[in-house]
Amino acid sequence: MGRVTQRRKVHKFVLDGSPQALEHPVRFKEDVLAVEEPLEIRLGEMSFSVTMRTPGDDFDLVAGFLVSEGIIWEPGQLISERFCSGEDENGVQTFNVVDAQLRPDVERPDTGRNVYTSSSCGICGTDSIDAVRKSSHHSPKEDDVAVPVRALAALPDRLREAQAVFDKTGGVHAAGLFRIHDDGTTELLCLREDVGRHNAVDKVVGWALRSGMLPLKGTVLQVSGRASFELVQKAAMAGIPVLAAVSAPSSLAAELAEETGITLAGFSRGLSLNVYAGRDRIVAETTEATPIIRGG
Amino acid sequence: MGRVTQRRKVHKFVLDGSPQALEHPVRFKEDVLAVEEPLEIRLGEMSFSVTMRTPGDDFDLVAGFLVSEGIIWEPGQLISERFCSGEDENGVQTFNVVDAQLRPDVERPDTGRNVYTSSSCGICGTDSIDAVRKSSHHSPKEDDVAVPVRALAALPDRLREAQAVFDKTGGVHAAGLFRIHDDGTTELLCLREDVGRHNAVDKVVGWALRSGMLPLKGTVLQVSGRASFELVQKAAMAGIPVLAAVSAPSSLAAELAEETGITLAGFSRGLSLNVYAGRDRIVAETTEATPIIRGG
Repeated sequence: MGRVTQRRKVHKFVLDGSPQALEHPVRFKEDVLAVEEPLEIRLGEMSFSVTMRTPGDDFDLVAGFLVSEGIIWEPGQLISERFCSGEDENGVQTFNVVDAQLRPDVERPDTGRNVYTSSSCGICGTDSIDAVRKSSHHSPKEDDVAVPVRALAALPDRLREAQAVFDKTGGVHAAGLFRIHDDGTTELLCLREDVGRHNAVDKVVGWALRSGMLPLKGTVLQVSGRASFELVQKAAMAGIPVLAAVSAPSSLAAELAEETGITLAGFSRGLSLNVYAGRDRIVAETTEATPIIRGG
Repeated sequence: MGRVTQRRKVHKFVLDGSPQALEHPVRFKEDVLAVEEPLEIRLGEMSFSVTMRTPGDDFDLVAGFLVSEGIIWEPGQLISERFCSGEDENGVQTFNVVDAQLRPDVERPDTGRNVYTSSSCGICGTDSIDAVRKSSHHSPKEDDVAVPVRALAALPDRLREAQAVFDKTGGVHAAGLFRIHDDGTTELLCLREDVGRHNAVDKVVGWALRSGMLPLKGTVLQVSGRASFELVQKAAMAGIPVLAAVSAPSSLAAELAEETGITLAGFSRGLSLNVYAGRDRIVAETTEATPIIRGG
């Protein structure tokens, strides 16, 4: 692949009043950008969806997208994936079209319906919470994994350490899948990056499907940025019991987590975090584990 | 409306070693979350798209989405918008379905095609840049607005000051449309917020369409977060000549800006910013406006 970042000449304006800036307020320099390109997903040569993504791990992305959409949920349902020929104006193969071959008994999505779904939400109807609850084959509800709060709060730092691309561009989201061991330690199983947070999660889920690891019992999915409805939905489809975000969740993310039995943590900041749903899986390390009720 | 934020009980874990935290590591408190709900967009009662959004300014959102999709580009093409009845389990009107009535001569999108487009990219095909270039009726290429670099670098702060919701939730994106006056001062014309950056931009564009202001000559669109291909595309469809992001653009965002004649700034941080395309519109305030070439 090798197209995760791209160098580009930029004009940098500096206004900080320093002698250097006063002399040269505009500099011409090279910057490294995260690559974003369209990926067309085909099912048996029929066009299914186009998503903007950072190239790399495309087979994982397609597999995970199909899991998130509820089309497949076990590895045998995905017979093969291949890049279709797609060339740019210079005749260079773009690797921007993936054709997925599904097992014949897998029910194809109703592609004739006159509604466009969004790859960033994956829903199609007003009663979105019910739609998700019905379609997940890997409910995380029964997963009784215990997550030490200190280990959970430390995951954003571990994610950043593992992000090779992040430091280069400042513009890439990450999703990291961690195993919680019985002794409370955590192990990074899979890290994926993308300009789109939802793609990073699909890449992790697709990796898990292709590795025969669904449902993802006893794991935590740590994502950069915020937690939306869509990310909770993807976690539910993969049977992930704990989703943690660096920043805030939306109202519907919290509600869906509650409904689907997912523990949802937000504002994970090393020394503190908030739990919006499924608090029972979080283990505090002192005797004061009982919540103190403080008035609204 | 009044559903931009929602209060929710959360468990806050604090591990900072303070006496208070040691005594009460888990507190039960109220947090304010940004509301996220599905909005179904109908065209003459036919379902067209579902997007996850923060309620509020929904008519602007729908109008802007239709501009971004290239379906309409002047206010007369949109005859009316209304909320359809949609009730939750308690019989309360949800205001989550908007029906847009288009002028009879407006070409409807081909809803029979078996491809799902993404509301977060709005493209449908591999040659996305060409698709956008063809469909914009408001090319910003001829717009020769001059933007003082200091005014441009200050816009993120002005956006944050204007964001009433931001401080409450920490989870809402914003898009602000600024007019550049001849004396170099800037005026905030419209500010919109949403859990989705693309929705915030659609709300601004829809407001402009409904106010009879398209194309948006002589303006700057300042967005929180990163600049994706999609945001540049939306700016191009509305004829916005300058797009500025607080964080990094993607490779395709920079390329599309170059192609469509948009000035794209990133990493706007008060005392510095990078310009990735269309540098000619940026006016430095010293005599050293000529770029100094510094080796790669």
